[in-house]
Amino acid sequence: MRYAILGTGALGGLYGSLLAKAGQEVHFLARSDFEHIQEHGLEIESPWGDFHLPSVNVYRAAEDIPAVDVAIVAWKATQNEQLAQVLPAVCSDETLVLVLQNGYDIERSAAEALGADTQILGGCCFLCCNKTEPGKIQHLDYGKIAFGEYASSLRGSITDRMQRITAEFASAGIPMQESEDLFQTRWQKLMWNIPFNGLSVVLNADTKQLTTHPAALRLVQMLMTEVQQCASVCGYEIPVGFAEKLVRDTERMVPYDSSMALDYRYRRPIEVEAIFGNPLRAAVERGYHPAAVESLYRQLHYLNDLNLQGS
Amino acid sequence: MRYAILGTGALGGLYGSLLAKAGQEVHFLARSDFEHIQEHGLEIESPWGDFHLPSVNVYRAAEDIPAVDVAIVAWKATQNEQLAQVLPAVCSDETLVLVLQNGYDIERSAAEALGADTQILGGCCFLCCNKTEPGKIQHLDYGKIAFGEYASSLRGSITDRMQRITAEFASAGIPMQESEDLFQTRWQKLMWNIPFNGLSVVLNADTKQLTTHPAALRLVQMLMTEVQQCASVCGYEIPVGFAEKLVRDTERMVPYDSSMALDYRYRRPIEVEAIFGNPLRAAVERGYHPAAVESLYRQLHYLNDLNLQGS
Repeated sequence: MRYAILGTGALGGLYGSLLAKAGQEVHFLARSDFEHIQEHGLEIESPWGDFHLPSVNVYRAAEDIPAVDVAIVAWKATQNEQLAQVLPAVCSDETLVLVLQNGYDIERSAAEALGADTQILGGCCFLCCNKTEPGKIQHLDYGKIAFGEYASSLRGSITDRMQRITAEFASAGIPMQESEDLFQTRWQKLMWNIPFNGLSVVLNADTKQLTTHPAALRLVQMLMTEVQQCASVCGYEIPVGFAEKLVRDTERMVPYDSSMALDYRYRRPIEVEAIFGNPLRAAVERGYHPAAVESLYRQLHYLNDLNLQGS
Repeated sequence: MRYAILGTGALGGLYGSLLAKAGQEVHFLARSDFEHIQEHGLEIESPWGDFHLPSVNVYRAAEDIPAVDVAIVAWKATQNEQLAQVLPAVCSDETLVLVLQNGYDIERSAAEALGADTQILGGCCFLCCNKTEPGKIQHLDYGKIAFGEYASSLRGSITDRMQRITAEFASAGIPMQESEDLFQTRWQKLMWNIPFNGLSVVLNADTKQLTTHPAALRLVQMLMTEVQQCASVCGYEIPVGFAEKLVRDTERMVPYDSSMALDYRYRRPIEVEAIFGNPLRAAVERGYHPAAVESLYRQLHYLNDLNLQGS
């Protein structure tokens, strides 16, 4: 299959390189690193094996990419306003769009860009990975993708095309977990992202600090309880004991600065609306007001705005 | 009357100096600035008139202060564990203790130190004042004290002794507002302190930033609504329109870093329990859980602990 990687950062660079190394035809869209990648290719350092692709198909403009079978949206949700221009350039009526971003209902802008939601799939990546310099990606740990159909008409089952994608990714060494319900998967991911991404920015704290200080841990738990209730009013039940398991798993992680904390530190936009605003609004529309989540959302909104002003 | 000023910082230094200048007998308890004040006295820069007291009664130990008529608790509530030792040293059975601190039920430790609540009064200061260097106090704006009786047996009226204090302070140029209900006064002060002190630390923002950025202003409003509800479950009704008036008044202030923001910046303890923990617990005990206030309380608890560790 022919792939487009929309956004050659840590995530897109890693998965795209693994697919290319496995022999797939991969076309990388890159902005800031375009020239470096054109000259030097992509270099991956990974517990799955280090490798270097000296020559890759890299583009500055989506219009130069041929129509692909699978377009992977790999940039941050803060860049999704580009989809209206980029997706039509790389998609045919048959192209599948796989949105690998965090947040709630973040596939909507891809669906709107194509004018159809039946070509859209979404996935959550469980991945610790950084771009350390242009074209150079350091994969630290994990790497699984949980994914599923976005269109409500297709949700509830594992489709043939999902199985085809799983097979191709698996042959490239990428573990895929097929989800019958993408929204359930997204809510469960938000149970981690909302407390740990949000508090990592506001409190400038890593995962270890957030799980060991009693006041911070209590905040994490308050937020998880509210996210669980948000999911519930939206029709998704988080399994009993899931929050406790997330906390225990996080306690066992190597102390980790979330990608949102790093984005904030380096004055890059953070995904305030995708991860906080969208789920908050979904809950409020259904009559539930999660005050701790709203507090965190407003704080991040303020901090992000100020951070990008450079003040 | 004979006064003891317990804590010769910005607040204690200003009010104590004004009383001394007016001819009252004032005894200052000082720690870090003791030697400087003993040698150089106290210097006040104020819109009410600059002045210098070259020689004041200053003490390092409360035991050296004679028994006084009025003991003014002027340090931060974070130092109140000292009251158990200091108050018995300066108080007779007739001494009135005036606790000039922010927070909820912060008179309790003074009452416990004396073993009687009928000698205790409390007051809220509406004051912009900083200590700029040892023995040197810069009074910027405002200065009114709203005060009242603490003991439940005396609340509900303006007592004769309150009127005596008011008269003495007034003759020293200090505007006093007698309150029939100290707790009502304290809740109304908390309507400002909780949002503006708390968010000034967490968001590193001044009053202007908090009232002009829409997300920050929304946070201020959420917190005010919750504080109003806390007061209500404790039996105190904040007047209709009070929150809006506070916001409007704050918008008109010169951009101002709250004293809590300054304490945090200079790694001094902040009054997390007095201003946030106590009112939160009072509400929770009565069955109301203010989630935005609790979020802010837990965040400040975490940040204050880390700040004092020097990390």
